[in-house]
Amino acid sequence: MSKRDLRKWKVRGERELLDASPFLKVSAQRIELPDGRIVENFYQLAMPDFASIFAETEDGRILLLRAYRHGARRVCLAAPGGHLSPGEAPLAAAKRELLEETGYEAAAWQPLGSFITNANHRCQTAHFFRASGCRRVAAADSGDLEEAEVVLMSRAQVIAAFKAGEFPFVSQVALFGLAFGAALAGSGA
Amino acid sequence: MSKRDLRKWKVRGERELLDASPFLKVSAQRIELPDGRIVENFYQLAMPDFASIFAETEDGRILLLRAYRHGARRVCLAAPGGHLSPGEAPLAAAKRELLEETGYEAAAWQPLGSFITNANHRCQTAHFFRASGCRRVAAADSGDLEEAEVVLMSRAQVIAAFKAGEFPFVSQVALFGLAFGAALAGSGA
Repeated sequence: MSKRDLRKWKVRGERELLDASPFLKVSAQRIELPDGRIVENFYQLAMPDFASIFAETEDGRILLLRAYRHGARRVCLAAPGGHLSPGEAPLAAAKRELLEETGYEAAAWQPLGSFITNANHRCQTAHFFRASGCRRVAAADSGDLEEAEVVLMSRAQVIAAFKAGEFPFVSQVALFGLAFGAALAGSGA
Repeated sequence: MSKRDLRKWKVRGERELLDASPFLKVSAQRIELPDGRIVENFYQLAMPDFASIFAETEDGRILLLRAYRHGARRVCLAAPGGHLSPGEAPLAAAKRELLEETGYEAAAWQPLGSFITNANHRCQTAHFFRASGCRRVAAADSGDLEEAEVVLMSRAQVIAAFKAGEFPFVSQVALFGLAFGAALAGSGA
């Protein structure tokens, strides 16, 4: 098949099915495929974008949170991060979430890329960052529903915890792939 | 905070908000937090689990697909993969999708881990695999809505395409993190 066949789909209509703002919106789009076929209901989801942070302290340890996560139905580890507030830039959200969730501030920030969470339904964009030279400036106070414990680990401990299944989410695999594998960093959606 | 505070949430009720089976179901759960507070509407999404495959040919090239993906609103690259059929095991789905989408079969398969796509709303589980020694045995015939072009790339070409922004999805970052970074492989949800 030649590349000229890879044409965009056309959105011929859209109706809202569910508005649970600010958490979730669901719509059904009427799609026209390049060959003229019509797909009556192609579902699109809109959820808040989020930031996820690979944060290293001044002495080279990685900042993590241990908390119950309802998506996994268990207590597990995750990197600091959270939803962007309306109108908030990704880096500003990352800085705010790191401070709120851990009480740490970073000396330097590096974007590791922005990526869409679902290839069909879109859902949201995840913004990944590296925060270096982090030091504690306040007490953690996230305001989240989850009670969380701040955990400091060496890279070897992070990889051991990963292999033990303590990181159950795709976004965390992506973050570690970007942070550990220098070849992947700096790209995005 | 001591670890004993990290207790599970209790689901006290659930009502269905949207049934767009087999693509999507949305429900609102009534949650009791460990401190006794009630969250009236915590949204849970159910979408089909999927397999994503890092497939290498006998001569060391990586099998990819170039296609329009509506989640990104553009033509881009992605690894072979797709939804599990009802009752289908992840590895069986991976083998089926690789054959349908590319016309290739693998000499060996290795699971790279299974991970949940959303920490709050759950959404679905992604199953990652490495397929080695792939050889072409048939014509590609995915039956998908997307017209797709099978592309063979060296690892260096994949990384260059990644840096150029041709892989817009979080799941692909995770797949490459698992496939390129041996330290991460073999864990999961």
